[in-house]
Amino acid sequence: MDKLERLQQQMSFLVEIDKLKTILRQSYVVHEHRRENDAEHTWHIALMAALLSEYADEELDLLRTVRMLLVHDLVEIDAGDTFAYDVTGHQDKLEREEKAAKRLFSILPEDQQKEYYELWKEYEDRQTPEARYALVMDRLQPMLQNVYTKGASWRKHGVTADQVIHRASVMKDASVQLHDFALRLIENAVKEGILLPGTESELT
Amino acid sequence: MDKLERLQQQMSFLVEIDKLKTILRQSYVVHEHRRENDAEHTWHIALMAALLSEYADEELDLLRTVRMLLVHDLVEIDAGDTFAYDVTGHQDKLEREEKAAKRLFSILPEDQQKEYYELWKEYEDRQTPEARYALVMDRLQPMLQNVYTKGASWRKHGVTADQVIHRASVMKDASVQLHDFALRLIENAVKEGILLPGTESELT
Ligand SMILES: [Ca+2]
Repeated sequence: MDKLERLQQQMSFLVEIDKLKTILRQSYVVHEHRRENDAEHTWHIALMAALLSEYADEELDLLRTVRMLLVHDLVEIDAGDTFAYDVTGHQDKLEREEKAAKRLFSILPEDQQKEYYELWKEYEDRQTPEARYALVMDRLQPMLQNVYTKGASWRKHGVTADQVIHRASVMKDASVQLHDFALRLIENAVKEGILLPGTESELT
Repeated sequence: MDKLERLQQQMSFLVEIDKLKTILRQSYVVHEHRRENDAEHTWHIALMAALLSEYADEELDLLRTVRMLLVHDLVEIDAGDTFAYDVTGHQDKLEREEKAAKRLFSILPEDQQKEYYELWKEYEDRQTPEARYALVMDRLQPMLQNVYTKGASWRKHGVTADQVIHRASVMKDASVQLHDFALRLIENAVKEGILLPGTESELT
């Protein structure tokens, strides 16, 4: 393949993934009243991963973690954002996202197609310290967004503390300190009345 | 300092920089008709830096480059986005951004305050391969956004080819291939009538 063709494939991919800026999440940005999109969320957690790396329980390759995060939500361009507490949406999520990954990464030159698919898959599989720590970021950030918007998304959807606690529980596989911090956020949120207490809650 | 206090400072910083999502640039996103914000732009170029690292002329620390990019525009939270072709705005840009960097990074624990200020300063000073390559990303991305929105921002502001060529010229200090590619984009944009030809243009 000639060099310019390779570069053109890479540019096509960069233009295609611009769509991530149009995928709305359920979380709200803090300083405006609007939902945030996946590109904004991704920037935020990539920086968060670097800033908080001291709290990772296992040694990790930070570059790999950040690269993983930068692509982790691209599949939502085709598959859409599945709300964390949407049970029905989660049933065929895997299948839809696998298909999306195949389509999107196939725009890239073959070597990068493989490289980026594997990076995404590694994130999904949670079998490496990098993937587990990346997930901590993905779980912690929407909690912060909720806490600092007085529970905008939690209240809108009637989310309960036990749901949030359950969702945060995977955090302890990669960072006991950040998981503890998350539990503290949840506890305070319930006290402040911005998150419904849950009957199954570990807090009660 | 106790551990929780440290973590709380880091979280305060993460919430403060959420404002990056509200800083609008002159570039347009490709798949919706609206201007993009700094957080979206930053996500895009951080991923771009990893994807296109093969075109860097000097060996570089990719993690440092990506971390640099993730924070490079934070100063615009206070200083605002200065349009590339705004001469007046550029006169006190440095001073405003320096002040912004000091305020923002001072939210962090002292060690990270220093670390992140230096990372930002390194980007501004362009004295390392990482900083020079990061700049290539920052210059190339808005060109792509323009080309794929039929020159939305170029046409709105009456930007000419020689202005874009001049702005792209620093790219050759870090990637001759991406600089060549940029010149090709500019040439095609003029042919397609989405960018005004410039009298000083190297293309004429
Ligand atoms: Ca996510």
